Amino acid sequence: MRKRVFSGARPTARQHIGNYLGAIQNYVALQDEYDCIYCVVDIHALTSMEDTSQLQEYIREIVIDWLAAGMDPERSIIFVQSHVPEVMELHTLLSMVTPLSWLMRVPTFKEKVKQQPENVNCGLVGYPVLQTADITLYKGEVVPIGEDQLPHLELAREIVRRFNNQFGNTLIEPVAKLTSFPRIVGLDGSDKMGKSTGNAIELAATPQETEEKIMTAVTDPARRYRNDPGHPEVCNVYSLHSYFSEAQLAEIYKQCRSAEIGCVDCKKLLAEHLNASLQDLREKRAELAAKPQHIAEVLADGAQRARVIAQETLSKVKQNMKLI
Amino acid sequence: MRKRVFSGARPTARQHIGNYLGAIQNYVALQDEYDCIYCVVDIHALTSMEDTSQLQEYIREIVIDWLAAGMDPERSIIFVQSHVPEVMELHTLLSMVTPLSWLMRVPTFKEKVKQQPENVNCGLVGYPVLQTADITLYKGEVVPIGEDQLPHLELAREIVRRFNNQFGNTLIEPVAKLTSFPRIVGLDGSDKMGKSTGNAIELAATPQETEEKIMTAVTDPARRYRNDPGHPEVCNVYSLHSYFSEAQLAEIYKQCRSAEIGCVDCKKLLAEHLNASLQDLREKRAELAAKPQHIAEVLADGAQRARVIAQETLSKVKQNMKLI
Repeated sequence: MRKRVFSGARPTARQHIGNYLGAIQNYVALQDEYDCIYCVVDIHALTSMEDTSQLQEYIREIVIDWLAAGMDPERSIIFVQSHVPEVMELHTLLSMVTPLSWLMRVPTFKEKVKQQPENVNCGLVGYPVLQTADITLYKGEVVPIGEDQLPHLELAREIVRRFNNQFGNTLIEPVAKLTSFPRIVGLDGSDKMGKSTGNAIELAATPQETEEKIMTAVTDPARRYRNDPGHPEVCNVYSLHSYFSEAQLAEIYKQCRSAEIGCVDCKKLLAEHLNASLQDLREKRAELAAKPQHIAEVLADGAQRARVIAQETLSKVKQNMKLI
Repeated sequence: MRKRVFSGARPTARQHIGNYLGAIQNYVALQDEYDCIYCVVDIHALTSMEDTSQLQEYIREIVIDWLAAGMDPERSIIFVQSHVPEVMELHTLLSMVTPLSWLMRVPTFKEKVKQQPENVNCGLVGYPVLQTADITLYKGEVVPIGEDQLPHLELAREIVRRFNNQFGNTLIEPVAKLTSFPRIVGLDGSDKMGKSTGNAIELAATPQETEEKIMTAVTDPARRYRNDPGHPEVCNVYSLHSYFSEAQLAEIYKQCRSAEIGCVDCKKLLAEHLNASLQDLREKRAELAAKPQHIAEVLADGAQRARVIAQETLSKVKQNMKLI
């Protein structure tokens, strides 16, 4: 029998090629081997999003990107976290068995405290509890994560063990499927793509917008003049070529090292290849964007299917906790 | 228009005369002036209750005590917290706007950390958030509390203000109705009644059990012999006389001071008066205990009426947070 994968993404911004090369392509591929549940985790978004005016737009856009990329609502369950309110029930109940000290030791919590010291809310420290509720409510067995997420999954497993130990065997202990997500640097060269405004190429961008964005990208800072030889190994644009210009990669390397090609032409080439590679996805996303009713139906159907599993789990949880 | 009162009690043990003289009589009286919602807060019980095997029994017993004492399900809404799961949704959502630092400063949290250092769970620190969800979900305007609970209510008001400030005017800011609850000392003289086993007289006790319990009570420790004069002002049994032997109080005081009456007779007198005073309640509680179906119906009806209000509030909350 196929195992069940659960994964979620926060709708805090539009999806960009970093998300595409990282999570989305992986989500698409996993569908061949697993029963997949993919969730737009809007409640998680609230831990760091004080202005929610664009939340619905981001949710719609992420679902359009997912479907356009090949995530298939016939095979997978695709839905929005808050559409199945049972997850907030399980979150509250799991919080009763989760030691506060476990949560305060989580590295990402400590990092967030530094990032948003003015907004260290109770939801932020409870983030891993809500994550555990997500995974276990839907009986997720396998969770595809990068190495940086391992402490969260380990914590989820500990919460499950503690719950099962206290109330009897109830929840499934999920296992990690370690996945090496490529680290896509932002166009400004400084950080992860999407971390600051203007350093990302959105999937929804037009070919022209894409080219304009790429033209602003930072390249090898040591190559100050057109005739200076470049250093592809430290060049951000070259690293993007490695995903979108595979066939010509050796050639580009050589031309950059020998200054045969300048950064402007090199960027134009990247824009061309990237746009070609995304052409299909963008056509599909334009079609989907024109059918908001279809998107709403996909999400309603996903929530309905997810809810059946959720209610099964929650009723077992409540029974074992003697709440019913 | 009558204002709405909300209050709740944790079903962590059987109700005793301390609860009766403190909360329950007050709940009954408030019904004349307010629209009251009284909630058995079973989810709150989980913050400190690791063994839940008696939870359903405690819930049933507390409701029987409440009804027998005169809390009227026709006039008031009487229900069990977890029967309206919307409260866990609101708890999760409110946790996103509640600074962790506010919660960690709460005096009762610090006290609990000392009491149960091995079980400082995330639900414990979130206790005031769940309490705020309780009050605001049901549009509670007035919360009857003792002075020791004031910091909790002040915190609830701050959470409401913060939420309304961030998402627009949504939740009602409750006000405290300060009530001086008599402090009923345990029979062992050491602490609050009910805090340790065997120091409480349960409402459900038979007259004989009541007498036997009272006979074990600690009295004035300075009165070592029958002929020593007693000190009613420090005597635990005398303080109970003040609630149950009002008419003879001056007489009892005099007889104790002059050693006319011994502790044994004084206790017998208390048992007699206490049993007489509780006779009606105990008859009603026996009738109610014989009708479990009726109790279930009262709670189902209460949950249904509470849920109508809850759904109204929650839908406004979600709309204003842009979750829908």
